[in-house]
Amino acid sequence: MIFRQKEVEIKAPKRGFFIVTDKIVSAIEFGDIKIGMMNIFLKHTSASLTINENVSPDVRVDMEEISDSLVPDGYDYNHSLEGPDDMPAHFKSSMFGVSLNIPITNGRLNLGTWQGIYLNEHRNHPGLRKIVITVWGV
Amino acid sequence: MIFRQKEVEIKAPKRGFFIVTDKIVSAIEFGDIKIGMMNIFLKHTSASLTINENVSPDVRVDMEEISDSLVPDGYDYNHSLEGPDDMPAHFKSSMFGVSLNIPITNGRLNLGTWQGIYLNEHRNHPGLRKIVITVWGV
Amino acid sequence: MIFRQKEVEIKAPKRGFFIVTDKIVSAIEFGDIKIGMMNIFLKHTSASLTINENVSPDVRVDMEEISDSLVPDGYDYNHSLEGPDDMPAHFKSSMFGVSLNIPITNGRLNLGTWQGIYLNEHRNHPGLRKIVITVWGV
Repeated sequence: MIFRQKEVEIKAPKRGFFIVTDKIVSAIEFGDIKIGMMNIFLKHTSASLTINENVSPDVRVDMEEISDSLVPDGYDYNHSLEGPDDMPAHFKSSMFGVSLNIPITNGRLNLGTWQGIYLNEHRNHPGLRKIVITVWGV
Repeated sequence: MIFRQKEVEIKAPKRGFFIVTDKIVSAIEFGDIKIGMMNIFLKHTSASLTINENVSPDVRVDMEEISDSLVPDGYDYNHSLEGPDDMPAHFKSSMFGVSLNIPITNGRLNLGTWQGIYLNEHRNHPGLRKIVITVWGV
Repeated sequence: MIFRQKEVEIKAPKRGFFIVTDKIVSAIEFGDIKIGMMNIFLKHTSASLTINENVSPDVRVDMEEISDSLVPDGYDYNHSLEGPDDMPAHFKSSMFGVSLNIPITNGRLNLGTWQGIYLNEHRNHPGLRKIVITVWGV
């Protein structure tokens, strides 16, 4: 039974949706796991993790625009002291989630051909985001 | 320690929400696991997996209608070359997620009485969807 | 390899978003796990679990208000026999999800400073909610 864990920090260049598959995969060793799982956990409440299309940059732009149209920035929230983007960021964080589980098969992440791991930065001024990566398997 | 993994393919009859609990449960052996977990991972970005009500067909119809009202089909997205249903499908895939984790207890999935596993097909013309099932436990 | 599981029941005081971190953490022993994972699984389809901000009560109020604005109560759903809050509750349950995975590090849940575990009660008249907690690790 293999169990490994590592914490990494990633900073998005700006608000939006960004592919971080390579940063995650290169951060931890799991090539010796034949059958297993990887969990990726983001330790924040105003960003999120998801899996989506890994080719078209337009998809990332649309993800941002649709998210913003569903939960617009503004000062009409009870929680608005930290800026008009703060409460919408909290909601989006829960809508997309902060914890991903991906199977490992024969030493590789078993993602679909078109799947990439996204870091979704929901604040206007991104900071460093801490991500705990855990792998386990046999 | 038990660790098993299997890939299955499921095709939804059309766009919409469909219960696939039996197909998942019958695909892999876990009756010998007393305490454990099952992960179900969909290798696509325009469909999703979720858990919801397993009796009323109306719930599945409403899930589809509410999803569509939140993220309507159309050509107003940057990513629209693959059809008016494509970008909404990507968004819904991230909103619902593609990875489910369900506890195993005494050799059975520990779902609630009214819970079923849904395959959510967000494209108008469904294809085969690959799902990786992983179980582990003692 | 450690594997433990326990079922707890939690009742929200009313419809809304509530922090339950302490109730979850105190329900199961995991102080002896150096590297591991915790899964929390809600056995219902009209409530959900999420991780969000653990300080400002305003965030919980806004989470409820934004959810309700996206999926309003009403009788315009096909599935409305159980009340105007029932179908919206099913949708929110799938939007937020019923299964959370959180890493364990050195015997503690590895949550971010501002992260708390929420029970989201989407029905007007809450009942007891069953939650299966599973921990595993080394």
